[in-house]
Amino acid sequence: MKPRILILGGGFAGLYAARELHRRLRDRAEIELVTTENYFLFQPLLPEVAGGAIAAPHAVTPLRFLARGVKLRKALVDSVDAEAREVTVFQGVQRRPTQIRYDHLVVALGSSTDLTRTPGLAEHALTMKSLHDARRLRAHVIERLEHADITELPEVKRGALTFTVVGGGFSGIETVGEMKELIDRSLKFYPSISPGEVRVVVLEFAERILGEMDPKLASYAMKELSRRGIEVKLRTGVASATGTQIVTTDDEVIDCRTIVATIGNTPAPAIRRMPVEIAHGRVAVDRTLRASGRAEVWSLGDCALIPLKDGASDRSDFAPPTAQFAVREARHLARNIAATLDGKPLEPFSYTSKGALASLGAHRGVADVMGAKITGFPAWLLWRAYYVAFLPGVSARVKVLVNWLIDALSPRSVVQISPEDPPTARHVLYRVGDRIYETGNRADGFFTVMSGAVEITGRDPRTGEERKRILRAGDHFGERMLLGATRRVATARAAEDTKVLVMGREEFLRLAEGLPEFRTYFERYLAEQGLDLPMEGESPEAAE
Amino acid sequence: MKPRILILGGGFAGLYAARELHRRLRDRAEIELVTTENYFLFQPLLPEVAGGAIAAPHAVTPLRFLARGVKLRKALVDSVDAEAREVTVFQGVQRRPTQIRYDHLVVALGSSTDLTRTPGLAEHALTMKSLHDARRLRAHVIERLEHADITELPEVKRGALTFTVVGGGFSGIETVGEMKELIDRSLKFYPSISPGEVRVVVLEFAERILGEMDPKLASYAMKELSRRGIEVKLRTGVASATGTQIVTTDDEVIDCRTIVATIGNTPAPAIRRMPVEIAHGRVAVDRTLRASGRAEVWSLGDCALIPLKDGASDRSDFAPPTAQFAVREARHLARNIAATLDGKPLEPFSYTSKGALASLGAHRGVADVMGAKITGFPAWLLWRAYYVAFLPGVSARVKVLVNWLIDALSPRSVVQISPEDPPTARHVLYRVGDRIYETGNRADGFFTVMSGAVEITGRDPRTGEERKRILRAGDHFGERMLLGATRRVATARAAEDTKVLVMGREEFLRLAEGLPEFRTYFERYLAEQGLDLPMEGESPEAAE
Repeated sequence: MKPRILILGGGFAGLYAARELHRRLRDRAEIELVTTENYFLFQPLLPEVAGGAIAAPHAVTPLRFLARGVKLRKALVDSVDAEAREVTVFQGVQRRPTQIRYDHLVVALGSSTDLTRTPGLAEHALTMKSLHDARRLRAHVIERLEHADITELPEVKRGALTFTVVGGGFSGIETVGEMKELIDRSLKFYPSISPGEVRVVVLEFAERILGEMDPKLASYAMKELSRRGIEVKLRTGVASATGTQIVTTDDEVIDCRTIVATIGNTPAPAIRRMPVEIAHGRVAVDRTLRASGRAEVWSLGDCALIPLKDGASDRSDFAPPTAQFAVREARHLARNIAATLDGKPLEPFSYTSKGALASLGAHRGVADVMGAKITGFPAWLLWRAYYVAFLPGVSARVKVLVNWLIDALSPRSVVQISPEDPPTARHVLYRVGDRIYETGNRADGFFTVMSGAVEITGRDPRTGEERKRILRAGDHFGERMLLGATRRVATARAAEDTKVLVMGREEFLRLAEGLPEFRTYFERYLAEQGLDLPMEGESPEAAE
Repeated sequence: MKPRILILGGGFAGLYAARELHRRLRDRAEIELVTTENYFLFQPLLPEVAGGAIAAPHAVTPLRFLARGVKLRKALVDSVDAEAREVTVFQGVQRRPTQIRYDHLVVALGSSTDLTRTPGLAEHALTMKSLHDARRLRAHVIERLEHADITELPEVKRGALTFTVVGGGFSGIETVGEMKELIDRSLKFYPSISPGEVRVVVLEFAERILGEMDPKLASYAMKELSRRGIEVKLRTGVASATGTQIVTTDDEVIDCRTIVATIGNTPAPAIRRMPVEIAHGRVAVDRTLRASGRAEVWSLGDCALIPLKDGASDRSDFAPPTAQFAVREARHLARNIAATLDGKPLEPFSYTSKGALASLGAHRGVADVMGAKITGFPAWLLWRAYYVAFLPGVSARVKVLVNWLIDALSPRSVVQISPEDPPTARHVLYRVGDRIYETGNRADGFFTVMSGAVEITGRDPRTGEERKRILRAGDHFGERMLLGATRRVATARAAEDTKVLVMGREEFLRLAEGLPEFRTYFERYLAEQGLDLPMEGESPEAAE
């Protein structure tokens, strides 16, 4: 029987490992690739999707086009039985577990984001890791412009027109560059917004941005961003965030309704369920890319800690988590696995970066290509040429080139395709004094307090007096929707820094309908509080 | 002060009304357009988006590009005060109510879908009205191919490879044509699926498809669809549906995991809150497009009942709900409103259809242009030329043309961009005997029974015996997730035709965390049932 090589993960590392193994081994082995999505995401193009320079489908290619000859399985990895050499996955809608046998296992699960260290970031920041993230950021930015154009409240307008990017590395700088370009080119369609009202800020905790690049190039980038009106705050990080404000480590409070977090990269949590040793959070491998202690388990890419020399100890002695390295590691892995099958000796991996490129948007970039430092328009062109050549498949290249051409000649579309469905119950943070809702607002959420305190001020329906209540962890409010209320009859304000859980109206009502005990509990609560009587300003008809 | 004309609705009727009014009146009036989305959807291209021939952003154009000089407001209409001539809308995230004054109100709220008459359709069918719908259908079809390629269960494969479209009008026929083309062109990438395993069915309740077209053209379309392997069942409708089956009015049960409903068109529910008379569910207007009884309220488009002659009584005496008519109505409305402002007499509206075009996908179509009947490739070319010319804006046209060119030369992308977020609590229907989940499945949902009965079979943890329970309306199951369970330890099956409410794992746990009474209730319930003990096959670690 042919040996089976099972690869987990469909990013640069996993995809190129599959392609290289197939190229080398052809029919001599069965190769299977397990991924959560059925497409390959060309991550360097994400900022372009966020800025609207290209459409989301142009940054992805079906794995089936790129990995011919390899069996593809869209499934969720559950666990690994290293003795039996079996991986359990969940596939399809029903989440039925399926066992997949392997002779060699390649762990290429990549990286993830963990923002939980900073209060409010996980709940309120947008990330830039996936295709959804890029699409969501673009829609979010346009929604802020739409709102800023029509609001009459100055603090709402200011918050809507302030955009903060946390992190001044490649991802942060390329994202802020594209985001600013989208905003600048769209303003002419928003007559109530003047360019001076827009504020774009980058927070970088280190001494300079683009720490991985040559200092001269980073310095050029700083000047270029500044010229375009982007504020860069060095030696500054984010201390906390809510849906309407961000507080920096310098204690500056910025009214801001768009926070993009490009920090918090962490290896995929799933590696902890792999039969491997973990070192510094990543899969420990030796110089041949074999996982320590097991001859048939391998790892590469962002999730692996790959020593580039013997006696590696310093951070720079290990392979950086970049696409450039992932692709070279994949080629090396294929050679070593083929060698194993042939009983030949394995080779240690080593590679030195050939350079780096970053786009600053607006036809400017910085590039370090084999030592040569290039800035401005030539660097930007080089960046685009490099990535188009790098894109797998002719039609992917043609589509992206054509889109870039059209983008150069016509305005950026400000179509805002909203998220499909209402969000599930989620956490929201408020700073002391923030208003959660006001009398007269549309009643569209049910709230429970997770921590902190909420002050509710309204008129008692029985006496007409103004009434104040303080609610704490475990208490809830906003449940009058159960009685058909469509407008708020009280004002809710955060009395302390507070975290709440919010559930949408439709869902709350659906749950009350489906779970009689849930409904009864709230009806009783409202009756006890004297809140079940109709209140001033309320109309009995259902919204919509 | 200049007169204010407020238009509600941004489809063909509303957008063209805004453009025409601006063109005629220029600075003489203030024109404002209130819409729920900030883009104009070119609906005829939706099937192309569903089939993957073009990307979603190419079927939409920002309203700001198309309605220059018109004030645009993205907001939800709440109510109208006809005496004060004010509309109340909700805008922005906070849902703060805002009043907008008008001198003339134009109601162009369009149509909506109501599938509630057929059990299961609202819960399980996909519609083809919005951009989300088209995107979702494409992703859904590809997900079925992905699953069919890897599943080892024949009934699952059959259901995944059966696709049913309900309704044989324009929308249904164009959608089935594109959907079949997407499937046909993608099969080569799915090695475990053979073309003969795919089944595509159209259910049409009338005697023929394309009832609005000439019978000869409809007959050509029937032959063409049949040639391509699409089954058309005439005089057949849908009696009921679940997530895995559809039952026809002929009592045929079809295993099918994709149901597209193009029936159920109904005027937008919001018109009932307008200060107008309703007739046959639509806004009653006279021949000048003025709403009966009010001199300053007008209506047009799909939501209006517009008589084409005096003494109109039969259905055919009224304007059909098509884009062609909406655009002519909009021009006429602009003339009549201008006449009103100038004190000149109003004109009655009349128009005869110039023809109709329908694409059948795969380079074939049918067209009826001013009496000339055209079929096949020329009709398909004509359809494309007509719509490209009709698209507003040069760059929209260029993008669509280029995409069509690339589509002709390269494989259709089978990238499946899944929905962003997990769905909120939703209703799911099961037919008697359907399995809801099985022992060993991933535990990812909490269920409550809305109607019908569910049988749970599992092993009693205390005695080891097999135990059966029947749950009915108001009962719930699947709550063991609260104890950290990640796998099902029992099997749940529909004992009757049943409707349940399902809530996802993450959300259920989040709610239990936020609402202590919710958590306590379930903990108590599990203890009473003896279900709080660890069970065979269960692992204590959290999933992910």
